[in-house]
Amino acid sequence: MKNILLLGAGRSASYLINFLSEESVKNKWKVFVADAHVEHILKYNSSHLSVVKADLNDDQKRDDLIKWSDVVISLLPPSMHILAAKTCLAFGKHLLTASYCAKEIAELDTVARKKNVTIITELGLDPGLDHMSAIEMIDKIKKDGGKIISFKSFCGGLVDTGSDNNPWHYKFTWNPRNVVLAGQGGTAKYLENGKMKYVPYHQLFRNTLKINIGEEGEFEMYPNRDSISYMTKYGLEDTETFIRGTLRRPPFCICWDALVQLGLTDDSFEIEDLSTTTFVEFLQSFLVNTSGTTEERLTTFLGIDAQHEIYKNIEWLGLLSDKKIGLVMATPAQVLQHILSQKWKFEDVDQDMIVLFHEFIYQKEGKNTKITATLVEKGTNNIDTAMAKTVGLPLAIATKLLMTGNLNLPGVHIPVIPAIYEPVLAQLQEYGLQIEVVQE
Amino acid sequence: MKNILLLGAGRSASYLINFLSEESVKNKWKVFVADAHVEHILKYNSSHLSVVKADLNDDQKRDDLIKWSDVVISLLPPSMHILAAKTCLAFGKHLLTASYCAKEIAELDTVARKKNVTIITELGLDPGLDHMSAIEMIDKIKKDGGKIISFKSFCGGLVDTGSDNNPWHYKFTWNPRNVVLAGQGGTAKYLENGKMKYVPYHQLFRNTLKINIGEEGEFEMYPNRDSISYMTKYGLEDTETFIRGTLRRPPFCICWDALVQLGLTDDSFEIEDLSTTTFVEFLQSFLVNTSGTTEERLTTFLGIDAQHEIYKNIEWLGLLSDKKIGLVMATPAQVLQHILSQKWKFEDVDQDMIVLFHEFIYQKEGKNTKITATLVEKGTNNIDTAMAKTVGLPLAIATKLLMTGNLNLPGVHIPVIPAIYEPVLAQLQEYGLQIEVVQE
Repeated sequence: MKNILLLGAGRSASYLINFLSEESVKNKWKVFVADAHVEHILKYNSSHLSVVKADLNDDQKRDDLIKWSDVVISLLPPSMHILAAKTCLAFGKHLLTASYCAKEIAELDTVARKKNVTIITELGLDPGLDHMSAIEMIDKIKKDGGKIISFKSFCGGLVDTGSDNNPWHYKFTWNPRNVVLAGQGGTAKYLENGKMKYVPYHQLFRNTLKINIGEEGEFEMYPNRDSISYMTKYGLEDTETFIRGTLRRPPFCICWDALVQLGLTDDSFEIEDLSTTTFVEFLQSFLVNTSGTTEERLTTFLGIDAQHEIYKNIEWLGLLSDKKIGLVMATPAQVLQHILSQKWKFEDVDQDMIVLFHEFIYQKEGKNTKITATLVEKGTNNIDTAMAKTVGLPLAIATKLLMTGNLNLPGVHIPVIPAIYEPVLAQLQEYGLQIEVVQE
Repeated sequence: MKNILLLGAGRSASYLINFLSEESVKNKWKVFVADAHVEHILKYNSSHLSVVKADLNDDQKRDDLIKWSDVVISLLPPSMHILAAKTCLAFGKHLLTASYCAKEIAELDTVARKKNVTIITELGLDPGLDHMSAIEMIDKIKKDGGKIISFKSFCGGLVDTGSDNNPWHYKFTWNPRNVVLAGQGGTAKYLENGKMKYVPYHQLFRNTLKINIGEEGEFEMYPNRDSISYMTKYGLEDTETFIRGTLRRPPFCICWDALVQLGLTDDSFEIEDLSTTTFVEFLQSFLVNTSGTTEERLTTFLGIDAQHEIYKNIEWLGLLSDKKIGLVMATPAQVLQHILSQKWKFEDVDQDMIVLFHEFIYQKEGKNTKITATLVEKGTNNIDTAMAKTVGLPLAIATKLLMTGNLNLPGVHIPVIPAIYEPVLAQLQEYGLQIEVVQE
C-alpha cells in the first residue's frame, strides 16, 4: 500500500483532506494527517485516513512519519519546510508545499535531481494558481505571435460581499499574523513602463491602485515584495511593466496605512507590562509631540478630522476604548492582532471569497491588445472556504499525479512547467475553478 | 615594560594616540597601534609607539597582539568588539571600548570577574561622557535631598558654525555610514510624564524637539533608540520623564525625513545595475503613482512646493541631476552615502563641534528646580577634532588608570560607577573639558 503524508492541517486543509480521502479509497492508498493539534481534524479519521497527533518540530517523529510515505505535503509554517525537505531527501520522498520557495529549499535542487526526488513549492493559490494561470496565458499569447509588454497579477483572500458587515470590509479568512505583518518582509519592487519602482513598507498602503473587477466592483491593490524575480520565471524578461500585488476592498489600505504610520504593526519589540494598560493608553504611546484630547492628538497625527473614515475605522476597532488589553507582554503587532481577531472574526455563518486577476497587454502586428483573466471563487461555508479550495486543490491534484506516476520531475520546481500546470489546471476545471478570459 | 594595544585607529583616534604616546614616554610603557590601513597613522611611530599593519579579522593576528598587552582599547567596528573581548578574557587582559555594550559583551561579566579582567564599554562621548556627566549631577542632586522627576540628555557631533557653509548645516565629522543608517536599529522608546512613548523609524525625524542651547542657538533633537534601559543604570527608576536624544541643526531633520519617506535610506536590498543610472533616475524609482515632471512628482509626494527648503535641499544634494551615480551595485543607503560624502565633506579647513546637554528637573521641599549641564567643544582642526578629543580622552584616561593600578574593577561595566567617572571627569577638566552647570 502506498502512503501520503500531510504535515500540518490548519484552516486551509479541508478540501485537500477530503480530496486525498476520496482518492485513497479509490486507489487503495493510505493518508496520514499529522499535526500538533488534532481535535479539529479527528472527523476525517477513516479506514484509509489516519489522524496522527505529533510535534513536528521533533526530528525523530518527523523521520518516522516521512520514511513510510511516498508523497509528503507540508502545510507547516514556512520556516519548517526546510526540515521536511531535508528528511524527504534523506529518504527519497517527494514533497509539495504552497509556500514561497525559500533560498535554502531552492539550493536543494541538485541533490533532489540526483536522488530522483520531486519538490514542488508555490503550489497553492498565491503563490500557485496565480503562476499556473498566468503562464498558461503567456504561453498561448507567445504561440500566437504576441509580445507581452505589460503584465499585472493581483490576488486577494477576502470576505464575501454577503458576509461583509464591517467598515474595514475585511475578515480573517486566513492566517491573522500574516495579515498583520504583511509587507514587512522587505521593500516592494516592480517594473513600470521600463522603470524599476521601490516601495518601502511605510509607503506600501498609501500608494494603492484602484481597480474594478467585473461584477465584484472596486478593489485596491498594493504591490507584493517580489515581482522582479518572476519576470525570468515567467519568461517575460523584456516586458516593460511587471507587477504582482495583493487585493483589498477600499478603504482598507488607507486605514491600515494609518496603523502603519502610528507604528502599531511593529513586531520588533515587546511592551513589557501591559497588565493594566487599556487600548487607548496603548494608542497614546504612539502619539508623540501632540497635545489635547486623544481625538485631537490622533486626528492631528493623521492630518484628518474625526469625521474621516480612517478615524471612524480606528475607533470602530476599539483602539480608543479604555477597556483593558488583557495581555501581559506583547509586541505592538501582537496587541493589534489581538484586537483584530475579535473585530475581524470570520464567523460560523460567514463565507469567504478569493479574487485572482491577471491583465496582459501584448503587441502583435503593431497593435496593442489587452486580455484579462479572472477567477472569483466563493466559499461554501466557513470550513469549506474558497481559500481552502484554491490552496488545497492544486496540492491535491499534484499529489495524485505523483502517486499515479504521472509526474516525473526530479529537482526543486515552482509550477511554471507545462508538465505541472497543464494537468493541474485541467483538473481544477472539473472542480469548477474556471478562469474567465476577456479580450478587450 | 608594560604594553598598551589600540585596535583600530580611525578618524577619532588622534587625541587618544597623542595622549598614550606622551604617557608611554613618561611611564616607560610601549603602545602598539594596530590597523588594516596604517598610512594615516605612520606619523605617530616613535620609540615608545609602534604602528602595526594587521588584518584584525585574523584570529591568530589578534591573539598575537593581545597576549603581549596589559590594556587593550578597541576602536574596531562595534560587531568586532566581541572578538577582542573573548581574546582579552582568554589572556586575562583589560579591555576598553567607546561603543554601546552589546548583549554578548554584557554576558561576559561573570567570567571577567572570575578572571580579574576589567571590561569597560560606552567610554567615549555618547555613549560615555554623557553617562559620566549625568551621573555626577544625579548623585549631587540626590545627596542634596532632591528627587529627580525629569531627565533629558542630548548630544550631537556637528560642524562648527564658522565652517557651516551648506544648507543642511551638517558635515561628516564622524562615521558617514552610521549617520545614513541612524535610527534604523529599532523603534525609539522613552518616557514622558510617566507615559511610555514609541517612535518607529519612519516617524523619527518628523517629531523633533526644538531647543536653544546658550550662545550656540537653535538645535533640534530626535530620540535615541534606547533611553529606557538607562533609567535603572542611572538610578532614576521613578523619574517621570527620561529621554536621550541626538542633536542636529534645523532644518536637518525635516529634510532627512523626506529622504526617509522616499526610501532613500533603505539598506535592505541592492540595486543590481546602476552602471548607467543617473541620480534623478535613482530618485524617480522611489516616486510611485504620480505623474508629471520630476519636480511635480517630488513636490506632490512630499506635499510641499518647489520653493520649500526641503525641495531646495534635496536639489542641492544633486539628487535631481542627470549625472551618473558612478556605482555598479549598491543599496539605496549606499547611493545616498556616496552623494552625501561629496556634498557633506568635512574639508581640511573645517572645524567641528560637539554639543552635550543635560536638563534635570528635581523636587525638593515642594519646589521644582531646573538645572542644565552643557558642554560645547570645538575642534582645533580637521584632525584634532572635538569628536576625537571627547571620544578619545575618556578612553585615554581610563587606560592610564588601569595601567597605573588605580582602577581595579573586574567585570563588564559602563562608566556609571564613581571609581570610573570621578577620576575621568577630574582629569578631563585639565584638558579644558569643563561642563557648564546652570540652575534656573
